Amino acid sequence: MSEAISIAETLEPPYYAVIFTSVRTHVDDDYPEMAKRMLELAREQPGFLGVESVRENGLGVTVSYWASEDAIGQWKQNLEHREAQSRGQSEWYSQYKVRVARVERDYGFGNRHNTSVEPLA
Amino acid sequence: MSEAISIAETLEPPYYAVIFTSVRTHVDDDYPEMAKRMLELAREQPGFLGVESVRENGLGVTVSYWASEDAIGQWKQNLEHREAQSRGQSEWYSQYKVRVARVERDYGFGNRHNTSVEPLA
Repeated sequence: MSEAISIAETLEPPYYAVIFTSVRTHVDDDYPEMAKRMLELAREQPGFLGVESVRENGLGVTVSYWASEDAIGQWKQNLEHREAQSRGQSEWYSQYKVRVARVERDYGFGNRHNTSVEPLA
Repeated sequence: MSEAISIAETLEPPYYAVIFTSVRTHVDDDYPEMAKRMLELAREQPGFLGVESVRENGLGVTVSYWASEDAIGQWKQNLEHREAQSRGQSEWYSQYKVRVARVERDYGFGNRHNTSVEPLA
């Protein structure tokens, strides 16, 4: 998903992360379009904070960040997203795992304005 | 990190996830060796549950899973890991973010024996 090639600029914790780890099949029909569309659609959802998505050698990790568990529940039930989930199971993914997690703390290094730097010492 | 090309087989929640998102510099000196070594070293730590690591177009997402926050704290303080963190800031990464999160629930689809499948309906 070339739209998500930077570190998400999330707010102060606590917030929520959905870690979606997946293994692709060799079926490509409509997959790039779906992936792009789901990213667009997620960005429109209430409570969406950001997303980081990478795939290498067939393994994909997409982490989306949300303001609340309720926001995650609503996104999961989104009709268009449900259709994608269904085709995901029948066509695009041989395996996936979804983990819903509460981000307790974060810290970083680098040039993002909202990244609090924690020294190593 | 070619050693982490499958979905981690974690236990029942709750457990912890460390989401490490990073942007690489163009400095490759010792980087592949460090990345491989850190993965080996992490696997030896008490409370380590698994890891998923992918990089695409310079953006990397590595999610490691841990039994407790204490296990995460000990790993962060590991001497060899601290040296890698230091070189990471000075050489290998232009930017990174670390998020420590408590996994509240998980579900999946596919052929892993420990993956609980949640139907879409």
